[in-house]
Amino acid sequence: MEKEKKFVEAITSMEEDFAKWYTDVVKKAELVDYSSVRGCMIIRPYGYAIWENIQKYLDSMLKETGHENVYMPLFIPENLLKKEAEHVEGFAPEVAWVTHGGNEELTERLCVRPTSETLFCDHYSKIIQSYKDLPKLYNQWCSVVRWEKTTRPFLRTTEFLWQEGHTAHATAEEAQEETIRMLNIYAKLCEEILAIPVVKGQKTDKEKFAGAKATYTIESLMHDGKALQCGTSHNFGDGFARAFDIQYTDKDGKLKYVHQTSWGITTRLIGAIIMVHGDNSGLVLPPAIAPTQLIIIPIAMHKPGVVEKAAELKERLSKVARVNMDVSDKMPGWKFSEYEMKGVPLRLEVGPKDIEKNQVVLVRRDSREKIVVSMDEIETKIPEILQDIQRSLLEKARAAQLEKTSTATTLDEFVDLINNKPGFIKAMWCGERECEDKIKELTSATSRCMPFEQEHVSDTCICCGKPAKKLVYWGRAY
Amino acid sequence: MEKEKKFVEAITSMEEDFAKWYTDVVKKAELVDYSSVRGCMIIRPYGYAIWENIQKYLDSMLKETGHENVYMPLFIPENLLKKEAEHVEGFAPEVAWVTHGGNEELTERLCVRPTSETLFCDHYSKIIQSYKDLPKLYNQWCSVVRWEKTTRPFLRTTEFLWQEGHTAHATAEEAQEETIRMLNIYAKLCEEILAIPVVKGQKTDKEKFAGAKATYTIESLMHDGKALQCGTSHNFGDGFARAFDIQYTDKDGKLKYVHQTSWGITTRLIGAIIMVHGDNSGLVLPPAIAPTQLIIIPIAMHKPGVVEKAAELKERLSKVARVNMDVSDKMPGWKFSEYEMKGVPLRLEVGPKDIEKNQVVLVRRDSREKIVVSMDEIETKIPEILQDIQRSLLEKARAAQLEKTSTATTLDEFVDLINNKPGFIKAMWCGERECEDKIKELTSATSRCMPFEQEHVSDTCICCGKPAKKLVYWGRAY
Repeated sequence: MEKEKKFVEAITSMEEDFAKWYTDVVKKAELVDYSSVRGCMIIRPYGYAIWENIQKYLDSMLKETGHENVYMPLFIPENLLKKEAEHVEGFAPEVAWVTHGGNEELTERLCVRPTSETLFCDHYSKIIQSYKDLPKLYNQWCSVVRWEKTTRPFLRTTEFLWQEGHTAHATAEEAQEETIRMLNIYAKLCEEILAIPVVKGQKTDKEKFAGAKATYTIESLMHDGKALQCGTSHNFGDGFARAFDIQYTDKDGKLKYVHQTSWGITTRLIGAIIMVHGDNSGLVLPPAIAPTQLIIIPIAMHKPGVVEKAAELKERLSKVARVNMDVSDKMPGWKFSEYEMKGVPLRLEVGPKDIEKNQVVLVRRDSREKIVVSMDEIETKIPEILQDIQRSLLEKARAAQLEKTSTATTLDEFVDLINNKPGFIKAMWCGERECEDKIKELTSATSRCMPFEQEHVSDTCICCGKPAKKLVYWGRAY
Repeated sequence: MEKEKKFVEAITSMEEDFAKWYTDVVKKAELVDYSSVRGCMIIRPYGYAIWENIQKYLDSMLKETGHENVYMPLFIPENLLKKEAEHVEGFAPEVAWVTHGGNEELTERLCVRPTSETLFCDHYSKIIQSYKDLPKLYNQWCSVVRWEKTTRPFLRTTEFLWQEGHTAHATAEEAQEETIRMLNIYAKLCEEILAIPVVKGQKTDKEKFAGAKATYTIESLMHDGKALQCGTSHNFGDGFARAFDIQYTDKDGKLKYVHQTSWGITTRLIGAIIMVHGDNSGLVLPPAIAPTQLIIIPIAMHKPGVVEKAAELKERLSKVARVNMDVSDKMPGWKFSEYEMKGVPLRLEVGPKDIEKNQVVLVRRDSREKIVVSMDEIETKIPEILQDIQRSLLEKARAAQLEKTSTATTLDEFVDLINNKPGFIKAMWCGERECEDKIKELTSATSRCMPFEQEHVSDTCICCGKPAKKLVYWGRAY
């Protein structure tokens, strides 16, 4: 009763069923497995290695900009969660409650953190006394829990991994600078490392974080034309400081409230990578975060010298890239499909004929281009090709985003676009919540952001016809 | 109303009150703060940076030995926890229960993971089919929750950080090899990186992990003579595999159960560092895990050229060590005390006279030895001194452990030693649970381990007088 796992099964094509294509990819590329816990995912080694690469890059950026990592408790007492009114209203409906510890019922319920503003504020109120204690630039890597009704791996899960930055500053200006600095770092992470182009902008009041004065966002577009929020950065002003009494003695001897920010990115970025770069053969990973950048596959392994030569190449190339070699007894064609499914950026084939000619055959995952390279040049050529893959993935994604971004000046045009050419729709807005609500009701599109790069595409609000105040990017979103 | 923080307050001496000394150090060295959540600690930047250094070292050791990181859910459904009988009996009394999600009561309670054997087993039962899928060498970095009645920072907290390795193997031999390999890696971490000498051995049945066939441990001794378990490695045999039906098809075509291990170390190692190396001036950190290895303190900062020279030295030394500089307006003496409290291994003082003589003054945290070094030699001398500090901390701790390890051949002698010369007591044991229970009742000492290096110190059990089977290390423990 042999129970053999088949590596290469066809996946649903994205044209046929995009949602099914997505779940096929996360499963078949072994990023995730479903767990016995409702709405919670198991992040498998390959998926976790991608997250570790994202962490490594971002963590070093955070440290370079003076941030320090800390660890706060997993639980928040109900009373603490309630201290900031808007915040508790936003989060209470979706938290998990611990009511029993050991065999005893707790006198006060604890929620499993959905986000840790309240814990950081409680701590800041104790450790901040003087202007000399400011700024406090703290970050935390952890998991958080939000009780979601419908879930999908990486995109929306009851538990997910993230980092949450929480900072306290002496002045409103410094807090605003920090908020934008972090948004820019996130944009850099997305564009330079994940090869995902983003639109930077501010959220409308309707879409901003519960308790924030202003929320900024980076928004990206997936293959199916739906938008995905890739990261947010919030300016809290002194709202939380007043609720939690976080005051410091300034140089002038006066007690003042601090100004705060918070910002976060999550494992949903892995979902974005899949849906921005993936194709009908599976995952396509940008080299900068690919756990394996180059897979070596020996051809005609039984022939003398082939495996030895492949091992020698692996050893040499390990100094310039993250390299793996597959010497299992599967057929080369099966291996090709397997590493295509896993999105390994570059494949190196080496067989008896190649050895004779002192060459290797490289195959790019993104373009499937075959490149024959002399063995003498692999250490210089391969890093160059990896860089070119990284660059061209971003370029291709930029072109796709541009192609899926339209402009509407009437509501009819808007409705037609959202149904027939899904993507970002640029349209003017009067600034009223009612118009946002109406557009959502009509089209299920939401305001993604008011972009920093404002344009004037018409004079009046797309919805009510009153004078326009802002250009807004609209779209259906994950 | 200036609220100024004082950096340097005297701490309780360890001779006066060891427990108070400990909590003074964790607070004043800014490792930890108490939170509003019962039994949960806040790990502050300085404490977390130590944990990150431990993680960095251990994680690279785990990857070198073929282990892969994954992430499992935070929650365990009650039914899953109950699958292995001994395991649930051991953990159920100390778990936190989630009973409500959002506004709804759950149909099945979820416990917040106290450890994740059950989740790994559930996953393994799905992904292991063939001998080709083995071994599975997974590890997870996360936090776990155990509902403790009395807590102390790092040593015993309701929530703590750890790594938990969970592996599955084709044979019992491989599982046993892995169990011991991991114990040895932990011992290496403790001795080479944390400069903490450990005794390696096996736990008695009474002290082993709930559900394990055999538990191995590394045990260390604190300043006060109490033992601290620094890490454990468990061989599960096929017990969990049978409970969770984890079977694979072997080369011979037969279905067989896998053999499993698990192993973990936690943030309590930071507690061990404090209590093995600390003194009445505060923390003493081994250079290998010190967030700052060298602190530069300019003397007579207002004199021309001093701060500039200090900055130049910092720049030069940053290439060979983790260096910081303090140019705040506090008096040098205050700075000295502050960095002594924080356990920074080496201090560099540089003032106008030193600049004149082309020299710096180094002061070791461990021995307080002053060393004058030519500015031309700092790049070679400082790493040498840091290595010497690392080496001599381990040597000193070894000597202290040896000094606190006694041998008893009668129960009277045992009782006298445990009360008057606290430490490890080596004594023979018959192998019966009753004798362990009786010794604990009489002395509150427990069997720490049956050391791998067995000696024969007498013929009969220290407790019942029957023929002895094993030498046991006994001690009161954290």
